[in-house]
Amino acid sequence: MRQSQLFTKTRKEAPKDEVSKNAELLIRGGFVHKEMAGVYSYLPLGLRVIKNIEQIIREEMNEIGGIEMKTSILQNKEIWEKTNRWDDAVVDNWFKSKLKNGGEVGLSFTNEEAYSNILKQYVSSYKDLPVYPYDFKEIFRNEVRTKSGIMRGREFYWKALYSFSKDESEHNAFYEKAKVAYQNIFKRVGIGHLTYETFASGGVFSKFSHEFQTVTPVGEDTIYLDEKSGVAINKEVLNDEVLKSLGLDREKLVEQKAIEVGNIFSLGTRFAEPFDLNYKNENGEEQLVIMGSYGIGLGRLMGTIVEVLSDENGIVWPKSIAPFRAHLVLLGSNDEAKDLAEKTYKKLIQEGIEVFFDDRDVRAGEKFADSDLIGIPTRIIVGDKTVENSSFEIKDRASGEVSQKTLEELISELK
Amino acid sequence: MRQSQLFTKTRKEAPKDEVSKNAELLIRGGFVHKEMAGVYSYLPLGLRVIKNIEQIIREEMNEIGGIEMKTSILQNKEIWEKTNRWDDAVVDNWFKSKLKNGGEVGLSFTNEEAYSNILKQYVSSYKDLPVYPYDFKEIFRNEVRTKSGIMRGREFYWKALYSFSKDESEHNAFYEKAKVAYQNIFKRVGIGHLTYETFASGGVFSKFSHEFQTVTPVGEDTIYLDEKSGVAINKEVLNDEVLKSLGLDREKLVEQKAIEVGNIFSLGTRFAEPFDLNYKNENGEEQLVIMGSYGIGLGRLMGTIVEVLSDENGIVWPKSIAPFRAHLVLLGSNDEAKDLAEKTYKKLIQEGIEVFFDDRDVRAGEKFADSDLIGIPTRIIVGDKTVENSSFEIKDRASGEVSQKTLEELISELK
Repeated sequence: MRQSQLFTKTRKEAPKDEVSKNAELLIRGGFVHKEMAGVYSYLPLGLRVIKNIEQIIREEMNEIGGIEMKTSILQNKEIWEKTNRWDDAVVDNWFKSKLKNGGEVGLSFTNEEAYSNILKQYVSSYKDLPVYPYDFKEIFRNEVRTKSGIMRGREFYWKALYSFSKDESEHNAFYEKAKVAYQNIFKRVGIGHLTYETFASGGVFSKFSHEFQTVTPVGEDTIYLDEKSGVAINKEVLNDEVLKSLGLDREKLVEQKAIEVGNIFSLGTRFAEPFDLNYKNENGEEQLVIMGSYGIGLGRLMGTIVEVLSDENGIVWPKSIAPFRAHLVLLGSNDEAKDLAEKTYKKLIQEGIEVFFDDRDVRAGEKFADSDLIGIPTRIIVGDKTVENSSFEIKDRASGEVSQKTLEELISELK
Repeated sequence: MRQSQLFTKTRKEAPKDEVSKNAELLIRGGFVHKEMAGVYSYLPLGLRVIKNIEQIIREEMNEIGGIEMKTSILQNKEIWEKTNRWDDAVVDNWFKSKLKNGGEVGLSFTNEEAYSNILKQYVSSYKDLPVYPYDFKEIFRNEVRTKSGIMRGREFYWKALYSFSKDESEHNAFYEKAKVAYQNIFKRVGIGHLTYETFASGGVFSKFSHEFQTVTPVGEDTIYLDEKSGVAINKEVLNDEVLKSLGLDREKLVEQKAIEVGNIFSLGTRFAEPFDLNYKNENGEEQLVIMGSYGIGLGRLMGTIVEVLSDENGIVWPKSIAPFRAHLVLLGSNDEAKDLAEKTYKKLIQEGIEVFFDDRDVRAGEKFADSDLIGIPTRIIVGDKTVENSSFEIKDRASGEVSQKTLEELISELK
């Protein structure tokens, strides 16, 4: 894409009410637009990042047997009354609205009810299980405090997978697979080295749930990390009994602030019971389905990546999710350099490389500052010297390393 | 995908309150799940169709300079007050909700305000124009009557593009390009032969808007079609003056029922004025931006395709949007046939062909009935005879034509 054709522009300042680094950089770079506290629109650059994150999550979910669908946002009151979660006294962050011809609807704040209700129609025999449906969609939570930029939204884009298994052992086997898939996701989006599987409170049906916590000083959660084993415990469940059961020594744990970028829960029969979600086993006996839930907020993940990987000049996107793989920057206005930049742009596209081409008529300093802020992994400079030397000056955004490369070397690196 | 792993199943009957053919077939085939009147979830097969439609629309929008982004669903009251469209007395189909810490939000029922407000931040000079941003997202309308299945929803998945142009002539040139893009879309999804560009009421800023109307007896709109020229007029604007201005003869027009599958509007400065959306032209003079809007409901389009292309046995998907390109149906339980079916399944996937494999242990009649209902374009039968003849029996869903093909012939046809 040509930068001259992108309508967004970088900004020197973020809105004054925006106190989080992630939202500040994402707004200044033209990735998101703040509609109100906790509600953001994705601008073209931001949507490209979200789509890249989405595709990585999709691949990992499909790999463990996930099957994609899409549940509605408007929620039927009757379905939520079955689990006693419609009442505002029970769930206090609903967004609800009135139907013109009478009655109320809710905006989905999670999906257990929707999935249990759909599966109830299709599951009757052991042959129908296990099933692992998931979706990506907007989720709504009527939060009072929304100070963390795109990390705690009133509206946020969320992946939710639900597992429907015949019994505990089938459930546990999938739960372990899901852990690995989650680890793969956080590695692939570039924060694997900072993200820890963390024991957290489990609820009625299991002792623990598991959170994936990314360590950063701005995190809202506190975890205790055993650096040697890589095991972490959320502060909320830290006590002597738990430490003993996990074989951990309190003395060796390090307290860290962290952001929860994903969580997985064993739900037991919490939802199967009210929905009467059962199946006939091989002996013809009725059994309740065992459920699990596996969530990741894509906007929060994007915000976390910005928080932990940016530097004083702007965002540093990992290659896997960057809006473009390369930033081609034309300097100067001499015709030969312009022709070479145009030729290079077309060649890179032809080779299937996603390239952002700064063809604007602005000064070099501004181009470099914008390029640093936007954070595309590899910068390619085309100027008068490029024409003379027939090699390009390349700058790696993450390391700052500068090198000279021929077009062939460049293509083979970027492919 | 293996049919045994898809959790949805076909149904003999649709819910009794479902009177439209499109929703009946889509529910029976396991494409959608009805959450309440006018609200549907997309099941795995349905989401595959929607994604195929989305990709066709995306390609055509990008082709005419569109740039994808994603505006939020929650809408800020202040922004809508600028255009006087917040008040329920002005717009009567809002869904609104209350914020926990005071104030109201709306659910987006269209996007002119959101886009005008965002563009206001980025447009200041003639160099910033034209711009053609678009998005795909859920739209909400608080409809009282919702009798048309997925064709008139309270929640629906919508593509909206907005054009921001410097002047009328730039606007008109894009408007004509958009018409062609729309014609391409309806051709590519398989209903081009039934879909007519139709003159409809224009509002304050232009004499006409243009609807794309697909002819079918269940249509809610009435159009008058000049079959020779392919020009149509919506009943709402049919009068002698309009006929004269379009050079049409009333006697030669045929009355038809039709479904509006897309529409394009010239908005003039209707939104630029309240948002003060202007730019400095080359002479340094302030000018208002000229806008246009270009919408397509993806669910409605999917429903329309089902309405007009299905037959007494079920849905007939065009190849371009079918959930799979081929339906591989294993008959009988003999080991050789099973092995051949497995081998063929893997080979087709290897060749990049999207194939749905009916590996279930049910009788042939049920498999054929399901296959007809689901409507995948090409059925490939693997049974005892296939093994003997080393050629496959192929059935074309649309024509019903049966032929024999070797694996090589099959692959070259499906690719």
